[in-house]
Amino acid sequence: MPAFPEVASSIPYEGPTSRNPLAFKHYDAEAVIEGKPMRDHLRFSVVYWHTFRGAGSDPFGPGTMVRPWEDGTDSVENAKNRVRVAFEFITKLGAPYYAFHDRDVAPEGKTLAESHKNLDAVVAVLKEEQERTGVKLLWGTANLFSNPRYMHGAATSCNAEVFAYGAAQVKKAIEVTHELGGEGYTFWGGREGYQCLWNTDMKREQEHLARFLHLAVDHAKSIGFTKPFYIEPKPKEPTKHQYDSDAAACLNFLRQYDLLPYFKLNLETNHATLAGHTMQHELEVAGAAGALGSIDANTGDLLLGWDTDQFPTDIYVTTQCMHSILKWGGLTTGGVNFDAKVRRESFEPIDLFYAHIGGMDAFARGLKIAAAMRADGRIEGMVRDRYTSWDSGLGAEIEAGKHSLASLEELMLKKGEAAPNASGRQELFENVINEYL
Amino acid sequence: MPAFPEVASSIPYEGPTSRNPLAFKHYDAEAVIEGKPMRDHLRFSVVYWHTFRGAGSDPFGPGTMVRPWEDGTDSVENAKNRVRVAFEFITKLGAPYYAFHDRDVAPEGKTLAESHKNLDAVVAVLKEEQERTGVKLLWGTANLFSNPRYMHGAATSCNAEVFAYGAAQVKKAIEVTHELGGEGYTFWGGREGYQCLWNTDMKREQEHLARFLHLAVDHAKSIGFTKPFYIEPKPKEPTKHQYDSDAAACLNFLRQYDLLPYFKLNLETNHATLAGHTMQHELEVAGAAGALGSIDANTGDLLLGWDTDQFPTDIYVTTQCMHSILKWGGLTTGGVNFDAKVRRESFEPIDLFYAHIGGMDAFARGLKIAAAMRADGRIEGMVRDRYTSWDSGLGAEIEAGKHSLASLEELMLKKGEAAPNASGRQELFENVINEYL
Amino acid sequence: MPAFPEVASSIPYEGPTSRNPLAFKHYDAEAVIEGKPMRDHLRFSVVYWHTFRGAGSDPFGPGTMVRPWEDGTDSVENAKNRVRVAFEFITKLGAPYYAFHDRDVAPEGKTLAESHKNLDAVVAVLKEEQERTGVKLLWGTANLFSNPRYMHGAATSCNAEVFAYGAAQVKKAIEVTHELGGEGYTFWGGREGYQCLWNTDMKREQEHLARFLHLAVDHAKSIGFTKPFYIEPKPKEPTKHQYDSDAAACLNFLRQYDLLPYFKLNLETNHATLAGHTMQHELEVAGAAGALGSIDANTGDLLLGWDTDQFPTDIYVTTQCMHSILKWGGLTTGGVNFDAKVRRESFEPIDLFYAHIGGMDAFARGLKIAAAMRADGRIEGMVRDRYTSWDSGLGAEIEAGKHSLASLEELMLKKGEAAPNASGRQELFENVINEYL
Amino acid sequence: MPAFPEVASSIPYEGPTSRNPLAFKHYDAEAVIEGKPMRDHLRFSVVYWHTFRGAGSDPFGPGTMVRPWEDGTDSVENAKNRVRVAFEFITKLGAPYYAFHDRDVAPEGKTLAESHKNLDAVVAVLKEEQERTGVKLLWGTANLFSNPRYMHGAATSCNAEVFAYGAAQVKKAIEVTHELGGEGYTFWGGREGYQCLWNTDMKREQEHLARFLHLAVDHAKSIGFTKPFYIEPKPKEPTKHQYDSDAAACLNFLRQYDLLPYFKLNLETNHATLAGHTMQHELEVAGAAGALGSIDANTGDLLLGWDTDQFPTDIYVTTQCMHSILKWGGLTTGGVNFDAKVRRESFEPIDLFYAHIGGMDAFARGLKIAAAMRADGRIEGMVRDRYTSWDSGLGAEIEAGKHSLASLEELMLKKGEAAPNASGRQELFENVINEYL
Repeated sequence: MPAFPEVASSIPYEGPTSRNPLAFKHYDAEAVIEGKPMRDHLRFSVVYWHTFRGAGSDPFGPGTMVRPWEDGTDSVENAKNRVRVAFEFITKLGAPYYAFHDRDVAPEGKTLAESHKNLDAVVAVLKEEQERTGVKLLWGTANLFSNPRYMHGAATSCNAEVFAYGAAQVKKAIEVTHELGGEGYTFWGGREGYQCLWNTDMKREQEHLARFLHLAVDHAKSIGFTKPFYIEPKPKEPTKHQYDSDAAACLNFLRQYDLLPYFKLNLETNHATLAGHTMQHELEVAGAAGALGSIDANTGDLLLGWDTDQFPTDIYVTTQCMHSILKWGGLTTGGVNFDAKVRRESFEPIDLFYAHIGGMDAFARGLKIAAAMRADGRIEGMVRDRYTSWDSGLGAEIEAGKHSLASLEELMLKKGEAAPNASGRQELFENVINEYL
Repeated sequence: MPAFPEVASSIPYEGPTSRNPLAFKHYDAEAVIEGKPMRDHLRFSVVYWHTFRGAGSDPFGPGTMVRPWEDGTDSVENAKNRVRVAFEFITKLGAPYYAFHDRDVAPEGKTLAESHKNLDAVVAVLKEEQERTGVKLLWGTANLFSNPRYMHGAATSCNAEVFAYGAAQVKKAIEVTHELGGEGYTFWGGREGYQCLWNTDMKREQEHLARFLHLAVDHAKSIGFTKPFYIEPKPKEPTKHQYDSDAAACLNFLRQYDLLPYFKLNLETNHATLAGHTMQHELEVAGAAGALGSIDANTGDLLLGWDTDQFPTDIYVTTQCMHSILKWGGLTTGGVNFDAKVRRESFEPIDLFYAHIGGMDAFARGLKIAAAMRADGRIEGMVRDRYTSWDSGLGAEIEAGKHSLASLEELMLKKGEAAPNASGRQELFENVINEYL
Repeated sequence: MPAFPEVASSIPYEGPTSRNPLAFKHYDAEAVIEGKPMRDHLRFSVVYWHTFRGAGSDPFGPGTMVRPWEDGTDSVENAKNRVRVAFEFITKLGAPYYAFHDRDVAPEGKTLAESHKNLDAVVAVLKEEQERTGVKLLWGTANLFSNPRYMHGAATSCNAEVFAYGAAQVKKAIEVTHELGGEGYTFWGGREGYQCLWNTDMKREQEHLARFLHLAVDHAKSIGFTKPFYIEPKPKEPTKHQYDSDAAACLNFLRQYDLLPYFKLNLETNHATLAGHTMQHELEVAGAAGALGSIDANTGDLLLGWDTDQFPTDIYVTTQCMHSILKWGGLTTGGVNFDAKVRRESFEPIDLFYAHIGGMDAFARGLKIAAAMRADGRIEGMVRDRYTSWDSGLGAEIEAGKHSLASLEELMLKKGEAAPNASGRQELFENVINEYL
Repeated sequence: MPAFPEVASSIPYEGPTSRNPLAFKHYDAEAVIEGKPMRDHLRFSVVYWHTFRGAGSDPFGPGTMVRPWEDGTDSVENAKNRVRVAFEFITKLGAPYYAFHDRDVAPEGKTLAESHKNLDAVVAVLKEEQERTGVKLLWGTANLFSNPRYMHGAATSCNAEVFAYGAAQVKKAIEVTHELGGEGYTFWGGREGYQCLWNTDMKREQEHLARFLHLAVDHAKSIGFTKPFYIEPKPKEPTKHQYDSDAAACLNFLRQYDLLPYFKLNLETNHATLAGHTMQHELEVAGAAGALGSIDANTGDLLLGWDTDQFPTDIYVTTQCMHSILKWGGLTTGGVNFDAKVRRESFEPIDLFYAHIGGMDAFARGLKIAAAMRADGRIEGMVRDRYTSWDSGLGAEIEAGKHSLASLEELMLKKGEAAPNASGRQELFENVINEYL
């Protein structure tokens, strides 16, 4: 089954100066930046859900995607075959990682037991393919939002048995992730929120969510899974309001329920902007809290109010991502995970290549620019200069805890007025950024 | 100086059935609801800044307000005279509280010492008027955002002396609030955030903010001011991004820096919606965290992206506010504070009455509706019914900590599928709410 | 097949004062308002697509709706049976109209001919049921957006055969609408726009759209269908940008291509707000242009950026709708069409009743309030008073074309300054509106 | 008065490879692109209002700008002196044009006559400086929104004398523009809209606006001013809703009132995005209607809901602007007008240079990229290829008016289904765009 015949020879044989859209222009896995190869900085991951299960449906029409390898059934056989195609794609693309939900890779059965069995059957093939190709699992997760059972949420469902069902599903998903050597495990609570606040007991639901996550922490410990858990913030969609609405809301929740030691954040550009923040803001919030775990690499459309999950192509955004990532120590267990989907009108298999290659190049370019900025040090120096009043004298004393309101009042009564401010130079900062592009 | 002659006799002499727009249709201070008079539920407060200092300017034009009592100077004399007018207005309106920033009531001097002196001079008149009229101070605050010195923030300024100046100003404002018997003290960090993330050291700035608030806590203790401190969330405007962006972000910050015991939240409808939340959401987040302190009563325009600070007239919103407030124990030290301004085109003094009376009536109506809902219990019962699976059996066991992922998996493997869900009945909930209006 | 057994007796037997949520509290078809019964003012219409074909899927999960009358197939037989249920529902609800897309009522065949045949088969049943029940067709329309063939649009597709296919479908849909006595025909161009402006020839596409609509006009004339055509503005979703983005954009297009004589607008609240306008604004724009045809009655969530199509329950909005409709002469061929869907979690048949009854009541209440406002005349009088300077003297002269810039300059040089303005009294207006609620 | 001493020598002496932020990196006035020098493509214009009158105030604080040449008065003398500084700045910057409102350049007097006199006095200096420096006037305009007289609008005021006053002001402004050889005249109706629809007679107001514009057209003819009039769309701010809300709304209005022959559009990025459109969309709408006149060059912040008027630095946006401008024939009378302001924190004179130089470079870069794309033809070819089905056969027949719904139905009944679609290739388009950056 030569799933991608038209691509098979394109990538290796085309050089970087070619206009062939299937050749990387910027990404070079081996190129060393800040002491390690691009591959290890970027840790690109292909998502199973959009790339291998996305059909192209939208609220106004069914799927459009032409996927010749699909036999049209939801059988385990088809699922196994799809794994082969997926690894062919990932390998040709040259991405070192992938990520999946339990229900992406294997069909849900009529009972939980059957679902477990289906999953085990496909996981065996995933394992084979991982070993054959060297592609690794970035993280696993459980889909606790698609099945109608989860209409009111999973951990936050008003139906206690749904909580239990979700718990069982997460247990299995963690185990399978562990078995496949996954480097993390992610929670995205698509329906952990509310559609209508009038019919919702928010406090009780959040306590249930905290309980649920503690159970997962305990189980991971019990089986020796020591990799990080991630929470992925998103403010809305599918629900009117998700509890994990942004980085700060997640951190607040994790602090309140003593979960912060076990969780980092998996941030996504499109989720950030739906919450009214830039991705750079969310990265800095997470980074400053020591909770920057992984990123979902996509772009939203700031004039649209839903999660478009477009492939990332904005060099400004990829530069901001990589700059913050380098600043906060780089990705260790996490990766740059393409939680992005080709447009409904880009229905050919080749579009999957165009999309991923464009996204990888955009991130590689962002990495190069961010590294150049850091090597150069001009921006960092301009920032440091702004805060010099804090590095000695009064500022240093305040930071060291040597002042009270009274001592500061006394000082300022003497001085009468604060020292003059310096210009913020925002326009200059923006111009300098542009010089690196 | 009969500042409001045309109004003097209107309110007392018009009955509630009149079409006189200066008569209350719903607010009756003495009417008892849930065991206490409306006055004590609503604790209405008039803001000094918009109502007595708002000139009606906007980014495209200067002020328009006709205020016959102003002499056109920024003198202490004019400031004192303005206090008399303010209390005449508040008294005629029948509001029990007011709130102010230091710089609203008295002019800023050329030095800090002169500013302190000006403030003291006017505070003496405020005290007299409080005693004369019985009107009380809901909370005081310091304006740490208007003076150009605060262009880069106050507690989060890159200029350490600006931090010190702000600290001195807050010290004085807390003392003055204490002297006037203020029932709280509020922090709204208008410029505590950033305009440009590239030129900002967010982590260091937030640490400074935490330091600043701890100094304030310590000072309040030292002078015996035991009333609550409030933080007022707002996501943006004037800066691109304020650190206190919404209730969850504030709570996260307060938890991270061990400030939660000393602070509650002062929530505002227009700030909530700018952050992408309903006011009801913010109230529930704060209430569930035990941090619902006070509210700023206004309405934004959901199709406009700036803080319009319109007077509240939407009965749905006032009902949601009062329902959440009653649910979480009512306002104790806080109040319903009209952080709202008349439109630039509503430039006559009488418009101040129309606006406040409309707002007070809208909240009184919201209170009556919320109380009727609670007395009736229909909505609350419908909510409770949704969660019955958690009140006994499996749900109760989970809440009691008797389950693990393993025990839940075992259970669900046996059952195969969760019990059926019940309809969420959102439409029915919405219809029932409408019945109370 | 007693499809709605639980409802059968509820509506007739419950009086309006009951707390039974299945009884109307405000809608009374026979109650006369401004000289005609509520029924004729409101002309309620049930939509076939959401109410009988909506499964409750969303981008993160499949359908949830329990519809016992469905046999699970997409057969013509099932389609015919569904018609019976639909008319049972509409009749029990007491709505006088319904609306449909061609593909809602009958399954698409493998060829156009088969689709035509399927449609004819079901239309025969629709006709029978219309005659049996007296329920009438408000308008028909063709679904030119769901089938993957329309991925790039229909009239604006880059594929000329898709234009031709859409033309054939519209021809049939107009004919069927005519046959069923439909009182109008609607165009909603869900994919007539673009996803990406870089790959789009907007001008050429709009010329094709104009051509398409002219062909429809010509065909309607040729078969004697003299009822109005409606365009339904929506700015985005499913595409990034639809050409019919709002009322003004539609009018501009219709004027540019000489189509205005043949088209009116079908306005929808949720589409208005997605375009950044209030529904009241869109109604006034259409009304002032003599193009207010019909409305889709729903509510969006102003904090969500997609078309939630919720049932209308906001009395402010329904009041605005009915006030503008009465002002511009009432609905004649158009209606109040419930283009609204029950939430995914409201999956029981009974929720369809709750939702429609709530929406009908909300509009009936809006009608009563709007009529009371007009009877009273207070608001209208306040508006008239604002413009008196235009009713005589200078204003009247300007309106009559008696002035030039030169004559006006001469006048104002003499006067030096314009006469003082009066307050806009926005707060008073808002308070007075609240008195009618 | 060496207003900008620190800059005087910076620009001429620094080469393009320098890291001096005051050297252009991309803009070279003489460099020839598509047959003419960059200067003539870009026609850069400095705005008088932000750059020479902007004080840096915002709704939460007064001005911050340090402008040593200002004497702190609103005198005619100060105004004249300011002109000298302005032309020094524009000359040093190397911009060929400027633009102004009447009230920017000269103080408003106590009467209209005095205002006229003040304006004449300053215009004499503007004329001198134009002649001395060769800097030209891109367009003039009248400020009909700042003075409180215009609180309810100018042409759309409910006060007829305000209409008259505005008419007189526009007459003078057109005359002055004509005298100074202005290449156009712009209408931006900041308050031509409404704050509250309930108190507004929208239809009557729009008729007044049309009357006003016709008077202006007639006057321009009478004095021999033959340059284009521009309307500048903006949806909101300062009002809740402006009538000229976007390009389509303006075109609709112009068509309805027979004004289209006299007006083109002056488009602004930040206004486009506030209306929910990309700037590229607005450019294409205007271009396709033959109404693309001029652009205001700035950038908004898509996460903020007000007009931030930031200097343009996003290369994607400047590329889109210049691509559309080249496509629709280039700027002839219009220009790239920096309707942008330095941030409140960028208060030093030197920041004006940083900001403009950055903006000019960003547009120069956009021009180079757009020209490279056009020279290369790859994108244009990909677009053309998408529409080939319209260039011959069926598509050409439809375009030529040779088909009816009936003939198309007949055709498609025979064919059964439309020819397959091709992929939209959005991702590939986006990747190719990135290659040009």
